[in-house]
Amino acid sequence: MRRVCAHCEFIDYVNPKIVAGSVVTKGDQILLCRRAIEPRKGYWTLPAGFMEEGETVEEGARREAREEACADIRIEQLLAVYSVPRIAQVQVMFRAELMSDISAGPESEEVGLFAWKDIPWSELAFPTVIWALTHYAETRHLPAFPPFANPPGTEKLTH
Amino acid sequence: MRRVCAHCEFIDYVNPKIVAGSVVTKGDQILLCRRAIEPRKGYWTLPAGFMEEGETVEEGARREAREEACADIRIEQLLAVYSVPRIAQVQVMFRAELMSDISAGPESEEVGLFAWKDIPWSELAFPTVIWALTHYAETRHLPAFPPFANPPGTEKLTH
Ligand SMILES: [Zn+2]
Ligand SMILES: [Zn+2]
Repeated sequence: MRRVCAHCEFIDYVNPKIVAGSVVTKGDQILLCRRAIEPRKGYWTLPAGFMEEGETVEEGARREAREEACADIRIEQLLAVYSVPRIAQVQVMFRAELMSDISAGPESEEVGLFAWKDIPWSELAFPTVIWALTHYAETRHLPAFPPFANPPGTEKLTH
Repeated sequence: MRRVCAHCEFIDYVNPKIVAGSVVTKGDQILLCRRAIEPRKGYWTLPAGFMEEGETVEEGARREAREEACADIRIEQLLAVYSVPRIAQVQVMFRAELMSDISAGPESEEVGLFAWKDIPWSELAFPTVIWALTHYAETRHLPAFPPFANPPGTEKLTH
């Protein structure tokens, strides 16, 4: 499928956009960012965003943590690759360790480190944030593991 | 970063394009396709190609195997996520099992099943094909494993 400029027939071959992000932890706590921008302004999310040209997925995930939470992170392993065809996105999510202090970047109203029981579950921005947190919890004690895809039964959310 | 149509300033926000593909095996043999199209026409590659809108990465990988080798495949696990910023691509490669006969699709001059020692190493189309084959070989006897990223020392090839 493709988009064509209505004026001049410049063809833009449409390909899903890649979001790179991480579940970043410090000990038992998980880094979340409260969104200062739409969509889902005011809701909590993981540091993640659209890849830019000239970077790898790992570099994109590190840049997003820096931009959104002023956080230096060390990527441990790929956690999951989620596909959301409805919004033409593929989300590449890593497990990472926090190596610095944190503070809110321009796209965040607030950032924080949350114990599992304190995660604001009803105020999470996107279904894939819940998926990534759950998949992180399933594998947190494993040094290495195969990555996850979309959870079974979520087709209605993604198509 | 973004591209703008020189004629009319139609803006195409550039995000790396996703290639979905697979190392498809039948017993000890690996499926390769000889390219009927540029770039690298006449060279051997794995079934892989640009994702289309409305599909998951797994659906994209299955569609490409069908289009290029008339192959039905069963995806086993994510093998690797390679980033090639130089050409603005992220390649999501699966390990898969061949479930059907094969024959050349319109983008392939020829398709074949190769034992490891018979792989045409000097006629492979892209460095990432070599990476995926090598990473497949390292994990072929494992039922589950963490996926690979770009091999160390390949930065000059990708940036
Ligand atoms: Zn135009
Ligand atoms: Zn134009």
